[in-house]
Amino acid sequence: MTVAGVTPHIDFNCDMGESFGVYTLGFDREIIRYITSANIACGFHAGDPATMRATVHLAEEHGVGVGAHPGFPDLRGFGRRDLAATAVEIRDDLIYQVGALTAFTSTGSLQHVKPHGALYNMAVDRVDVGMAIGEALLATDPALILVALAGSAWAVAAERQGLRVAREVFADRAVNADGTLVSRAIPGAVIHDTSAVIDRSLRLVTEGTVEAVTGEIVDLQADTICLHGDTPGALHLAAELRRAFEQAGVVLVPMGRLLAR
Amino acid sequence: MTVAGVTPHIDFNCDMGESFGVYTLGFDREIIRYITSANIACGFHAGDPATMRATVHLAEEHGVGVGAHPGFPDLRGFGRRDLAATAVEIRDDLIYQVGALTAFTSTGSLQHVKPHGALYNMAVDRVDVGMAIGEALLATDPALILVALAGSAWAVAAERQGLRVAREVFADRAVNADGTLVSRAIPGAVIHDTSAVIDRSLRLVTEGTVEAVTGEIVDLQADTICLHGDTPGALHLAAELRRAFEQAGVVLVPMGRLLAR
Amino acid sequence: MTVAGVTPHIDFNCDMGESFGVYTLGFDREIIRYITSANIACGFHAGDPATMRATVHLAEEHGVGVGAHPGFPDLRGFGRRDLAATAVEIRDDLIYQVGALTAFTSTGSLQHVKPHGALYNMAVDRVDVGMAIGEALLATDPALILVALAGSAWAVAAERQGLRVAREVFADRAVNADGTLVSRAIPGAVIHDTSAVIDRSLRLVTEGTVEAVTGEIVDLQADTICLHGDTPGALHLAAELRRAFEQAGVVLVPMGRLLAR
Amino acid sequence: MTVAGVTPHIDFNCDMGESFGVYTLGFDREIIRYITSANIACGFHAGDPATMRATVHLAEEHGVGVGAHPGFPDLRGFGRRDLAATAVEIRDDLIYQVGALTAFTSTGSLQHVKPHGALYNMAVDRVDVGMAIGEALLATDPALILVALAGSAWAVAAERQGLRVAREVFADRAVNADGTLVSRAIPGAVIHDTSAVIDRSLRLVTEGTVEAVTGEIVDLQADTICLHGDTPGALHLAAELRRAFEQAGVVLVPMGRLLAR
Repeated sequence: MTVAGVTPHIDFNCDMGESFGVYTLGFDREIIRYITSANIACGFHAGDPATMRATVHLAEEHGVGVGAHPGFPDLRGFGRRDLAATAVEIRDDLIYQVGALTAFTSTGSLQHVKPHGALYNMAVDRVDVGMAIGEALLATDPALILVALAGSAWAVAAERQGLRVAREVFADRAVNADGTLVSRAIPGAVIHDTSAVIDRSLRLVTEGTVEAVTGEIVDLQADTICLHGDTPGALHLAAELRRAFEQAGVVLVPMGRLLAR
Repeated sequence: MTVAGVTPHIDFNCDMGESFGVYTLGFDREIIRYITSANIACGFHAGDPATMRATVHLAEEHGVGVGAHPGFPDLRGFGRRDLAATAVEIRDDLIYQVGALTAFTSTGSLQHVKPHGALYNMAVDRVDVGMAIGEALLATDPALILVALAGSAWAVAAERQGLRVAREVFADRAVNADGTLVSRAIPGAVIHDTSAVIDRSLRLVTEGTVEAVTGEIVDLQADTICLHGDTPGALHLAAELRRAFEQAGVVLVPMGRLLAR
Repeated sequence: MTVAGVTPHIDFNCDMGESFGVYTLGFDREIIRYITSANIACGFHAGDPATMRATVHLAEEHGVGVGAHPGFPDLRGFGRRDLAATAVEIRDDLIYQVGALTAFTSTGSLQHVKPHGALYNMAVDRVDVGMAIGEALLATDPALILVALAGSAWAVAAERQGLRVAREVFADRAVNADGTLVSRAIPGAVIHDTSAVIDRSLRLVTEGTVEAVTGEIVDLQADTICLHGDTPGALHLAAELRRAFEQAGVVLVPMGRLLAR
Repeated sequence: MTVAGVTPHIDFNCDMGESFGVYTLGFDREIIRYITSANIACGFHAGDPATMRATVHLAEEHGVGVGAHPGFPDLRGFGRRDLAATAVEIRDDLIYQVGALTAFTSTGSLQHVKPHGALYNMAVDRVDVGMAIGEALLATDPALILVALAGSAWAVAAERQGLRVAREVFADRAVNADGTLVSRAIPGAVIHDTSAVIDRSLRLVTEGTVEAVTGEIVDLQADTICLHGDTPGALHLAAELRRAFEQAGVVLVPMGRLLAR
């Protein structure tokens, strides 16, 4: 997809449906216009049935791929705190959440599953957790696409499990020389400058490379690029990134169509 | 089904999967041998993902029909307390719970849905709640059977919505002259004598009648009969009732096969 | 307090601390400057330990009376949905919440308790619920002030229980000829015009009267007036109301000092 | 306390009040007769307001010291799963739980606080967590006794914080040569033989020593010994242990009286 002369394609994903009861979060109704895949919270770290229904409908109306964004059962911590759940518990919690979201679709199936927050990071770090997540997808619907960190052992293991994997990069995150994400505990882990984020994103998508914090040029093939939608400036960045992709001739398509090519 | 010369058939249902975390409730592994349909809690009033998975597998292994038993989001009150949720909230909560349980099945679909506790009673009392429940089934899977109180306006309304309805009677509950259940607030509402429960159950199934608390003989056509599994003596009663049905030539079949005849 | 020649005094209360985890609600840091008593959510319908600590400290810093704002255990419904809890359950839930908030104070005691949402309305409607709430206060700290609707049977019953009661009126709610609140289901129940809200508030505080929706002039003696802090325009209204009170010579004091006079 | 000629004294503690809603756990009404201090769950990992009230009353009736048993907010995992909460979150969660339980006492104060499960183990492993727990006690009531593992860095740090510390040993747990508990992941970590448990308990209390799994004799001064109340045989063991203590002339007293001597 990044070979010279070939039109680059990418999926543009964002977390959505993270409101809960009277509490609202994010700018779903605006950001939905710029993205091609929506990761929808499933009621454990965020989201509730009414929000899930509304967000699925919003995505379907806009032709945006509908995916589950399951997390740890930790609403207070927004799923960002590690929980020492067993692999079996993680698998069962994912089956539950994926099933719940699926029931709100008009088609009876989802495009993808992307674990949230601490669960995503745990899958990157631990093979057993990554495998348990894969098992949940296989048990629920083997056609589901798993969104996993590009270049991670997790992404490789998931493909060996027989899953379709969308390799993910982050528009606004610094990477190490081995392609892993710089820990948020380290200054500079999150890139806040809009033009820098756009430049990196274009290079990732058109060249398949990114400059590491230590200066090396890292190869990183991606199927989908993630934008964080709950930060100040997210809406502006989404619009700018979308425009930059289009100006550069990058074709934005939901990951389901991208992986089917 | 109760005409002379025709073999009577009935489904025998019981609530299951009501354990939560370290807390165990009921005698699922024993009672499963006697029943033909299992109503499995979905994590709101009871149950958790691990329990749901185990209970679905238990039912499937025994050839017992797998159904959802959704309730109000009130674990502390075990779904027995009325909650003034709107019809839309009830519908969305049901879609969520039905979807979550469905994901644990090996077939990708459930046989039936039976609302739990206060939600069931609210559906009997209020047409809008009953209709909201029906909408949840239609939105999720129009082939789902709804278990509704035999003789209730709810059961009638659900059939008009286009749902398949299994008309339910209770083995151990006294009824009024109009076929409604005697309120649990009134002494004698629950029948504790095993032989009386068995006699009433046989009469309901073979003759389609029951004697009201005020002495009248009430016609009550039933597709499924419910046994409460969390009471002392439930296991003994289940075994006795099963034996009595078989001795009387009553054929026990899951409601899915019964309604397909 | 409303006799000619006597300076009118009133407490000005507002709900606070209703954020939860990553979710923020209200304008606590601004509104705190205008009010004299804060009703702080206790983790059941809203609020969490970190928010409770921060909000107690905020109120203490500003010399604002610290009170508990306990509600039904229904975070998703924000405590606005009736829950058929028993009087004993309500009492125990209040003791729990009041105790939890008390532990965050620097003094080891609260000024007052004001039930939230559906629980407040249920206390107005049902004597047994109102009494159960009173029992919770007596069990926890008999010196606690209960905030109850001015003119209600609940307020009278609470005084008979031996409680100190702050009679509450609402700045922005229409009242019936008998002094009860007009149901929110009826158009005009909430008054949105700022100057009308201010005029009514001044009249309530200085004359002890309010004009009912049906035109009658109703006597309504109040110790505290409530402003809803989570609506658009709440901050502006709080500032305007505070200024109007001061211009009219109304002295704003926390209810604890007011009832001690 | 273990010097020759001096009567040995010990507090005998057990976790209690771990039921939730319709779910019951443990044998509180029986075990209460044998122990001198009760660690009562506070609604986060187990327990609910009604259970807390009933359990506090039960302990008070039997002259048993009333303590809080706060845990992680993880009912499904029974507080046994590590949660990556920050030290500040842990402190605030403890203040909340300790305050909630305190409100159910007739005296307005607790004897002690003993963290539960994963939180206890985390305090043993991490000084910052142990210190955060200590801060919660100091913020709530500086007279509170902290129950901490005998011989741990946590126990030492807590004393330096100015807390009264009850050094705890476990009747049925194997220890390493340095006095730490053998991990439950290792076979033999929990001792199931009743007479072995009793022999070790007597030696710990009368001699202040225990034999490590590797054969060394370890000095371990204890103020309180813990019995797990939710295991099969717990009731029998409690009765046997109580009898053995009394026959050996060990005086059983609540830790509050023990530390006041």
